[in-house]
Amino acid sequence: MLSFSRDFSFDLSDPRQRVMEEALAAVGEERSSGRIGYYNLPEGSLPLIEAAERFAAESPLFAAVTDIAVIGIGGSSLGIKAVDALMRVKKSGGRRLHYFENSDPINIAQTMAKLEKARTLFIVISKSGGTIETTSIFKTLIGHYDLQLDGADRGRVLVITDAGSSLSQFADHYGITQYNIPANVGGRFSVLSAVGIVPLTLAGYDTKALLDGARGFRDRFFEGRENHLLEKACYYYEQSAEQSINVLFSYANELEDLTKWYVQLWGESLGKIDVEGNRVGMTPIGIIGSIDQHSFLQLLIEGPLDKTVTFIKVEDFENDLTIPEITLPFIEKTDFINTNSFRTLINAQCDATKESLVQSGVATDMITLSNISEANIGAMMLYYELLTSLVGAMLKVNTYDQPGVELGKQILYGKFEK
Amino acid sequence: MLSFSRDFSFDLSDPRQRVMEEALAAVGEERSSGRIGYYNLPEGSLPLIEAAERFAAESPLFAAVTDIAVIGIGGSSLGIKAVDALMRVKKSGGRRLHYFENSDPINIAQTMAKLEKARTLFIVISKSGGTIETTSIFKTLIGHYDLQLDGADRGRVLVITDAGSSLSQFADHYGITQYNIPANVGGRFSVLSAVGIVPLTLAGYDTKALLDGARGFRDRFFEGRENHLLEKACYYYEQSAEQSINVLFSYANELEDLTKWYVQLWGESLGKIDVEGNRVGMTPIGIIGSIDQHSFLQLLIEGPLDKTVTFIKVEDFENDLTIPEITLPFIEKTDFINTNSFRTLINAQCDATKESLVQSGVATDMITLSNISEANIGAMMLYYELLTSLVGAMLKVNTYDQPGVELGKQILYGKFEK
Repeated sequence: MLSFSRDFSFDLSDPRQRVMEEALAAVGEERSSGRIGYYNLPEGSLPLIEAAERFAAESPLFAAVTDIAVIGIGGSSLGIKAVDALMRVKKSGGRRLHYFENSDPINIAQTMAKLEKARTLFIVISKSGGTIETTSIFKTLIGHYDLQLDGADRGRVLVITDAGSSLSQFADHYGITQYNIPANVGGRFSVLSAVGIVPLTLAGYDTKALLDGARGFRDRFFEGRENHLLEKACYYYEQSAEQSINVLFSYANELEDLTKWYVQLWGESLGKIDVEGNRVGMTPIGIIGSIDQHSFLQLLIEGPLDKTVTFIKVEDFENDLTIPEITLPFIEKTDFINTNSFRTLINAQCDATKESLVQSGVATDMITLSNISEANIGAMMLYYELLTSLVGAMLKVNTYDQPGVELGKQILYGKFEK
Repeated sequence: MLSFSRDFSFDLSDPRQRVMEEALAAVGEERSSGRIGYYNLPEGSLPLIEAAERFAAESPLFAAVTDIAVIGIGGSSLGIKAVDALMRVKKSGGRRLHYFENSDPINIAQTMAKLEKARTLFIVISKSGGTIETTSIFKTLIGHYDLQLDGADRGRVLVITDAGSSLSQFADHYGITQYNIPANVGGRFSVLSAVGIVPLTLAGYDTKALLDGARGFRDRFFEGRENHLLEKACYYYEQSAEQSINVLFSYANELEDLTKWYVQLWGESLGKIDVEGNRVGMTPIGIIGSIDQHSFLQLLIEGPLDKTVTFIKVEDFENDLTIPEITLPFIEKTDFINTNSFRTLINAQCDATKESLVQSGVATDMITLSNISEANIGAMMLYYELLTSLVGAMLKVNTYDQPGVELGKQILYGKFEK
């Protein structure tokens, strides 16, 4: 279960009601017209779970697989990593996921050093099929592991891509199993499509619960039972010039990859030239408590009031630890915490930091997860996707494209075309 | 060697000259008066290297040590991690560093699971001595490993703290070896003090080169041979209201911890109420290329022009990899990069992204490291410390305190005082 609280308040008067109604209508239209596909993934992706399980059962190579290499970048890796980082702790056994996502040679070599061909399944993920990091790394892996795509190793590779993409045609050519991403689902909204569901299912996660959690939140929202989300979107929109930085302050190390997923979703969706030609957008920042209380908090408390801060807190940690009743001479000052658990400490730190920000005039809110579970993660991902769509509709931007990244690609290609 | 380039230009007219001269004078005074101590660490910390080497040679337990646990948070861990993450790759053998830095029970349990008592040295780092995370984790380790501080395990613990602090008195009480941080060196400026030098020396890094690199950059700056730094500080200061977000875009995974060190240094030093009572400060963000081209770049290109972007590029990677000459049917589009190295690719991506930002009107500059070496890291750390001091002087804030974090601590303590 997720619960929500906030300390900012504002008058829900007529003009604001209209902003919210229009955004709700826009999002409803995106969904009902089928123009935007992520809304329907919680049901639409259910067959993928069976398909992945069938692959696992029928593949002659898969029984020996202990490691799954995900070759993908951006929207093709961030969502998988977010779920994996959170759920890995609770997993006993199953297959481990590894990520090839950057053109950093040191990182690529280190990840290759962990993987043996006979125990590895390679999943190549690219929506367009032409991502330079992904194809370059894939070729490097083909070379390094001597992958025989037209022979013995065909079953050691899976492809996830748009139907008809160059990568899809490549898979067809070799008879490699592929799963397709719906054309109306963008990369950063794709975690609940084949992009996330296939690798996470094969790694042994409860992807049914992930989809169910997402569906539950989506349904409650569209039934008008999560209106706080609409109000939060309206607040963000209204303050987008003054409070243009949106900080996600997560109190658990395991949430760090989720904050990175959020950074892409928020930054790339809303950082746009709007219909009137203005540069708009809000800047996402992910930080981790308690550690970043010793790094970023001073700026939040005394710096410019240009930020909102959303806290994420986990009520129950599966593996808790008690601080022992030990008194050390001269450092008795912190003995008050003895016999409490670290969960109690970190959550009290979260509450105390939030209160100190409220007293300093910063707009904050909090999302509380009852525990770390696939269902809660699915709900939280849908929460952020809906929030993004709503603010995008209010800002009058195209939430789903990313035209700004093309220029750098063209310049890059130009450097090698000689 | 470090080299620097920038695309922003501005008229160095009289009022700006005065701003720069005054900041230079302020920083010079901080140094010559001895009020601020980090300027002199490149020489002042040299004896610590010998002291740490003596400890290693004379300690009866140390020969068996393969792992060093650093128990510290914020300024007591970020600098060590930054150097370690960069240099680890080049290290053959030596001792591994592990970090206990957050009150997250899952993270603590995972790190403990990697360490055996007989092979571990525990280094407790806290400037004030009273950091709640550090003392709580230390007690947990005492309980878990049954550390006999008044007996056999005294030599298994080192303490790094201010002279006279509660932690220092604790160490004296048990006869535990301690190294002190100069009182005039703040936590986030302490990487070149005992905080960084002792653990990094014991782990086998060339801390002499680290200090020499820092000293070289500092000397060149004060000799007027790195004036671009002063000009950059002036630009940041002048634009601090309009371009209030300073992005560090590092093109190597191994630089991620350095960007976290920068985030603390920049955010906590400059996010302040100034002498006139105004909230000032600039927001640091660290991102990694090429991966965050698929996450944050769209916002940089099309979003509000409220950011500066500094690129960090490494010219030579020790471990490079060549992209093989493999053509895959249907995905020939990226074949132009075949037979190039990943270093060539990632650096071309860095250059192309920078060019695309320049064309979009974003103020950018670039720091190029000839290679990854202790000397270059030391120089870069001094570069950022000096930049922070200069901008702090221009903004008329106290660069070296952090009064804003006290409120949250008081609220936390209040929650347990019953």
